[in-house]
Amino acid sequence: MADSSRVIIKNSHVIDATSQEPRELTVVVEGTDIVDLVPPGSPVTSGDAHEIDLQGGWLLPGLWDVHTHIGRGIPDPGWRDESIAERTTRAGRDCMNALALGITGMRVVGEREYVDVAWKRAFDSGLFTGPSLFTCGWFITTTAGHFLRSGTAKEVDGPTEFRRAIRENIKNGVDFIKLNLTGGIMGPPWDGMQSTFPTPDEIDAAFEICHQRGFKVVAHAGGTHGIKTAIAHGAWTLEHGYVLDDEAVTMMAEAGTYYVPTLGLSHLNRGPAYAESEIEHAWAEAHPAPPDYAARAVVAAEAHAEGFKKALDAGVPIANGSDLALPDGGLLELAQLVRRGMTEWQAIVAATKTSAEVCEASDRRGTVEIGKAADLLVIGSNPLKDIENVRDVKLVMKDGQIVVRN
Amino acid sequence: MADSSRVIIKNSHVIDATSQEPRELTVVVEGTDIVDLVPPGSPVTSGDAHEIDLQGGWLLPGLWDVHTHIGRGIPDPGWRDESIAERTTRAGRDCMNALALGITGMRVVGEREYVDVAWKRAFDSGLFTGPSLFTCGWFITTTAGHFLRSGTAKEVDGPTEFRRAIRENIKNGVDFIKLNLTGGIMGPPWDGMQSTFPTPDEIDAAFEICHQRGFKVVAHAGGTHGIKTAIAHGAWTLEHGYVLDDEAVTMMAEAGTYYVPTLGLSHLNRGPAYAESEIEHAWAEAHPAPPDYAARAVVAAEAHAEGFKKALDAGVPIANGSDLALPDGGLLELAQLVRRGMTEWQAIVAATKTSAEVCEASDRRGTVEIGKAADLLVIGSNPLKDIENVRDVKLVMKDGQIVVRN
Amino acid sequence: MADSSRVIIKNSHVIDATSQEPRELTVVVEGTDIVDLVPPGSPVTSGDAHEIDLQGGWLLPGLWDVHTHIGRGIPDPGWRDESIAERTTRAGRDCMNALALGITGMRVVGEREYVDVAWKRAFDSGLFTGPSLFTCGWFITTTAGHFLRSGTAKEVDGPTEFRRAIRENIKNGVDFIKLNLTGGIMGPPWDGMQSTFPTPDEIDAAFEICHQRGFKVVAHAGGTHGIKTAIAHGAWTLEHGYVLDDEAVTMMAEAGTYYVPTLGLSHLNRGPAYAESEIEHAWAEAHPAPPDYAARAVVAAEAHAEGFKKALDAGVPIANGSDLALPDGGLLELAQLVRRGMTEWQAIVAATKTSAEVCEASDRRGTVEIGKAADLLVIGSNPLKDIENVRDVKLVMKDGQIVVRN
Amino acid sequence: MADSSRVIIKNSHVIDATSQEPRELTVVVEGTDIVDLVPPGSPVTSGDAHEIDLQGGWLLPGLWDVHTHIGRGIPDPGWRDESIAERTTRAGRDCMNALALGITGMRVVGEREYVDVAWKRAFDSGLFTGPSLFTCGWFITTTAGHFLRSGTAKEVDGPTEFRRAIRENIKNGVDFIKLNLTGGIMGPPWDGMQSTFPTPDEIDAAFEICHQRGFKVVAHAGGTHGIKTAIAHGAWTLEHGYVLDDEAVTMMAEAGTYYVPTLGLSHLNRGPAYAESEIEHAWAEAHPAPPDYAARAVVAAEAHAEGFKKALDAGVPIANGSDLALPDGGLLELAQLVRRGMTEWQAIVAATKTSAEVCEASDRRGTVEIGKAADLLVIGSNPLKDIENVRDVKLVMKDGQIVVRN
Repeated sequence: MADSSRVIIKNSHVIDATSQEPRELTVVVEGTDIVDLVPPGSPVTSGDAHEIDLQGGWLLPGLWDVHTHIGRGIPDPGWRDESIAERTTRAGRDCMNALALGITGMRVVGEREYVDVAWKRAFDSGLFTGPSLFTCGWFITTTAGHFLRSGTAKEVDGPTEFRRAIRENIKNGVDFIKLNLTGGIMGPPWDGMQSTFPTPDEIDAAFEICHQRGFKVVAHAGGTHGIKTAIAHGAWTLEHGYVLDDEAVTMMAEAGTYYVPTLGLSHLNRGPAYAESEIEHAWAEAHPAPPDYAARAVVAAEAHAEGFKKALDAGVPIANGSDLALPDGGLLELAQLVRRGMTEWQAIVAATKTSAEVCEASDRRGTVEIGKAADLLVIGSNPLKDIENVRDVKLVMKDGQIVVRN
Repeated sequence: MADSSRVIIKNSHVIDATSQEPRELTVVVEGTDIVDLVPPGSPVTSGDAHEIDLQGGWLLPGLWDVHTHIGRGIPDPGWRDESIAERTTRAGRDCMNALALGITGMRVVGEREYVDVAWKRAFDSGLFTGPSLFTCGWFITTTAGHFLRSGTAKEVDGPTEFRRAIRENIKNGVDFIKLNLTGGIMGPPWDGMQSTFPTPDEIDAAFEICHQRGFKVVAHAGGTHGIKTAIAHGAWTLEHGYVLDDEAVTMMAEAGTYYVPTLGLSHLNRGPAYAESEIEHAWAEAHPAPPDYAARAVVAAEAHAEGFKKALDAGVPIANGSDLALPDGGLLELAQLVRRGMTEWQAIVAATKTSAEVCEASDRRGTVEIGKAADLLVIGSNPLKDIENVRDVKLVMKDGQIVVRN
Repeated sequence: MADSSRVIIKNSHVIDATSQEPRELTVVVEGTDIVDLVPPGSPVTSGDAHEIDLQGGWLLPGLWDVHTHIGRGIPDPGWRDESIAERTTRAGRDCMNALALGITGMRVVGEREYVDVAWKRAFDSGLFTGPSLFTCGWFITTTAGHFLRSGTAKEVDGPTEFRRAIRENIKNGVDFIKLNLTGGIMGPPWDGMQSTFPTPDEIDAAFEICHQRGFKVVAHAGGTHGIKTAIAHGAWTLEHGYVLDDEAVTMMAEAGTYYVPTLGLSHLNRGPAYAESEIEHAWAEAHPAPPDYAARAVVAAEAHAEGFKKALDAGVPIANGSDLALPDGGLLELAQLVRRGMTEWQAIVAATKTSAEVCEASDRRGTVEIGKAADLLVIGSNPLKDIENVRDVKLVMKDGQIVVRN
Repeated sequence: MADSSRVIIKNSHVIDATSQEPRELTVVVEGTDIVDLVPPGSPVTSGDAHEIDLQGGWLLPGLWDVHTHIGRGIPDPGWRDESIAERTTRAGRDCMNALALGITGMRVVGEREYVDVAWKRAFDSGLFTGPSLFTCGWFITTTAGHFLRSGTAKEVDGPTEFRRAIRENIKNGVDFIKLNLTGGIMGPPWDGMQSTFPTPDEIDAAFEICHQRGFKVVAHAGGTHGIKTAIAHGAWTLEHGYVLDDEAVTMMAEAGTYYVPTLGLSHLNRGPAYAESEIEHAWAEAHPAPPDYAARAVVAAEAHAEGFKKALDAGVPIANGSDLALPDGGLLELAQLVRRGMTEWQAIVAATKTSAEVCEASDRRGTVEIGKAADLLVIGSNPLKDIENVRDVKLVMKDGQIVVRN
């Protein structure tokens, strides 16, 4: 995938995700990497470099969505009528479509038959050009756990089966282990968010084997009990956290647990009447939730927003994960982070630097710095004024390779 | 199922299951609910209401049978020769036949392939008109546990399998979990009531997962050890309790465990010679127990009656559950409650208010009160004089809809 | 189910399905049967009979739909998420809803797990009040045969498996054997109507065992080759027959094969633009076919109509079978018979007398004659003027029992 | 995939695969199709068309490889260690890499789990841009048949299992049925080319069901008996035909059987010492065959070449299929066709027009004609002088879309 040519990107406002405000910099890319950031007035060696004049665009690190499923929506009655090969081609295209929107990194938090791992390898090896994928393989839950109608959950019972399922995932090349602790919004009545599904010995066994094998846990937890259990057991990231009380927030802040709130899941599934922009309205009309799901989302959204604000105020590190359909779920969630209380700058940091940390990829990705991979998104209008401006894509670069140029 | 018309039921003695004696009241029903209870002399707005003059009948809350199997009797050698579909049609008719006798609520404590859940949904959604059903799905026991010849028991071994079976039941929509702790009267020699079948770790695992998922346990326990184990683990209801000693009774009273004695099981299966009424005699002739079962029933009945009396005196909350064949098992058990020591009034409260509490349905059902669902039974003669008078059905109403009118 | 009371139905125009025109008759029903048909002026012994004055209504034999599936529509992605018990309750209600429209007889031509047989028994035994059902159990096809996404087809290969599947159906109580010979309209590309699916040895084996066990074959055949193969092998009824050439028509006429054209399947699935009445328009809007199915229906409808007309002119006996969703598919097909060339009288005979013959039930049902079961439909307006008047239901009687009275 | 823009391709020598020699033509493409072929001197309406000046290049129909496996090479010990998803991504890239070499059409003659069908659908629907694929799904053989170590063969025994396997392939969307009749070069000792594997009844059953379902047979046959059996049963294409005697050639010519000789399989696997060009030498070094395979190839090559020459002289229609690893197997085979006796022009026709006929795609593809899809390969040097010049790619166009432009 490496492109050894030198590219010079001029005349943009650089939001590097490390400074406190945009800087005027010329970005020099060589091969896969950012090799120089040159302030105005300083000389740039052009040589035979390809020059791109952005004419005042806004250059950001590529965005991330660290809570996505690359198969179909939820619930998905059709998964049984599709071959794994066909699911694979479809999922790959969806990933590539997300990249074309500037989403250069994704964490897949539940997928069947290691379709996620296959695409991770295909993208990493340059077989195809796609976002950096971080994978969890099967979503591990108990019988009568969460997300059963998605075709991506594996139901296991007892410490031994938890261990085996986790080891199977490890054997098949996953990066993280996704554990289901509680119910959620999108399920049958017995799948409520306040219910914790695995028993203490199952939870202990699951976290123990993950710890021993050096795999971090992505913990789906909606209700207070499940949330605290996850944090106390050393979850790397807490997903959803619909009902965060003060104690949970304090625990997260102290433990350094990353929080992936998936705000869009509760807020956008309420239906078009709750939309806060034209884009959200169109999305809600195109993705109607079943009435009982929507009703639960309405109830959940309020507590969800409140808990998110607490976590934000307490300094919990927060990342951008949508749990919404590809390709643009990550952009919708980014806007939700702002609507629920982050500044635009904070939201961009959440969706770049912090999300890359969540994926343990921050040594190479997530910021615009010398020596980092050139995963870049350039947009034509200021995202600090309106976060939905991230959709005004001018250029997407992945590992130094131009993927989109408008 | 809702019928929005207004029905005024006049001239009855109302046994509301909350007062200490019958009251003369006009009962006003609108849609599914009781909307007014009018004392004599007070005006009742008729409008275009349908008026029913009961001419001095006795109006009760609909009766309940909280220990029933809607498949065949016990043992049932025929279940393997019947398709699930055929079992389903038969079971549904039996439920509706029970409703026609005034049994407006039933708890099904063991059924195969979720036939009970299917009918619960069919009745709740108005697809068919039947009693309010509360379900347990599969009756969970160990290999060599109780009730194996009924076709409704699932044999599991070890904590993990208990957990999985319970979770499978949850996933399929049950309301309660039925656990088998001991043998009983109606089984082979190794299925004796004093034997406790699950091991301590299995029992712990089963109760733990029920507790965690918020599902209450319906505990089949005949012998003293099993009974105390069940109570100590927080069983919601104790079924059978053939051999209750003082300690067990004290434990129940303190824990607030509901007791469902199923007195008819030991008393009526002794054979026609033991019948205490013409109705019981006819039933015993029509339902002959195998000689060895009958012999065991004779032995069990004495201790059973004694324990029941102790529990009654100790203030243990007692409900009406028959474990006898549909449709009229619940009426036979109601009479047994009286014959073994309850007043008629107590027995009716047991079969209405207390039984509805057992099903966690008492916010809507079980008494004749304003705001409750109109699940009503009207009989032509005084049940407080002879409890078997409940068979003199004049009217059955379910959720405000007239089901029977004689 | 027998109601021993005597019912006298007066003042109706009787379309008895045997005469050439309506007659003014008083219909006397006793128990389950029609016991007298009294011309005007003749005395009728009333005694304590229940008298119904129809005030000039139109009294017909109850209608039949001899090509129906009592499960969901086609394709049905949801069948795997529903228990057999739940499918059973739903299917039963659908049958009863059809009866409420005056459809007193149905042949179910493909259903999973003998749900059809269960309801047949439930209705025949009086457990529930429903139409007379005639059943086929599993729809037998080859691997890659027709109707696979309905959940009602069993795929078998080779003569032995055909035999076994047929014998399994027989063992489980079916009335007829439904064999799939060709593709149809509602399937994937390889499921075309002109393809014959079973090989000659499979076809021979299937018909041979049916013949030997005395079970008549219901043959799904859309294309010319499959049609002729079915007729030549002695099929009792030919279903669909989308492409009937002259030879096929002659073969049918000579063999006495019954033809069940299911005209609605091709004509109504074309979409609302093709509707020929308001009722059809509303139906087409409520039951949108996938675009590729609709396109195939458009093509098929023309040849289908042409073949039907040929068969009608050649005197082939034709019955009413819809293959459309319950409850009113049979009424839509009845109208199609008229729109495609039958007189109203012919269509009513097709949907009563001939359909009962198809089910081998004409000794008891299908006409208004003394000694026949009182399966009756009374409507308020003249169906010979407009066939859709059959929806103006005044009374439905099944085996002498009043089911609907408007 | 359609690109509605107009492209004008000027200044090339057009080898249209229908004329006897190259013609100077301007090729006009609109959307997916060739809409005009304009001789020198005639006016071409440019409008806003995109003009490409080929400066004397050679424009051919896109090339085809009608005998390929899109998984790994043969044998493939690694297939069991790879998930279906990973196999899918790899296979897709290989197809796209072949397209980048100008191979715009491929027939996949054996692949596991319908990976081929998934990519066919992905390419046809425009999800990805790849060659036109024609698929066979599982390669069907007997137990102890050929190609077992590839992971793409399904072993079946007896007529019924042949039928079922073929029907399963049909159900999953294949275009052709690949049948294994004999052994080959690349297998264990018992897998010799002169052995015919299926028994006569299995062969009859297999061809019968293919014929009945309208699916053409791709027959793998190496030895004389298997070859004649295949032709006599109506095989659509004969694959390999290592030992063609005069009778076999006559049979093919008379039956119109297409011959896909896969000359490279025997000639190139002999090892570098036998290479006839630098390209072949490099390939042989990079793809070393096990010594016993190479030894058998040496033996086979001679008869193979001889039979091929006979078939060519007898006018048997011959297509280009390599059975060599992707992406450039088809180019190696093209050269073999020339080395073994075809003129360059004949070889190009074999690899375009005739190969498209083999795939039943010649109404849309395989030649440069008005109204055909614009599947084009432009090379910089004359392939009629040296067939290996087809590697000098200047432009590849698929369905009117430019895929490669050097």
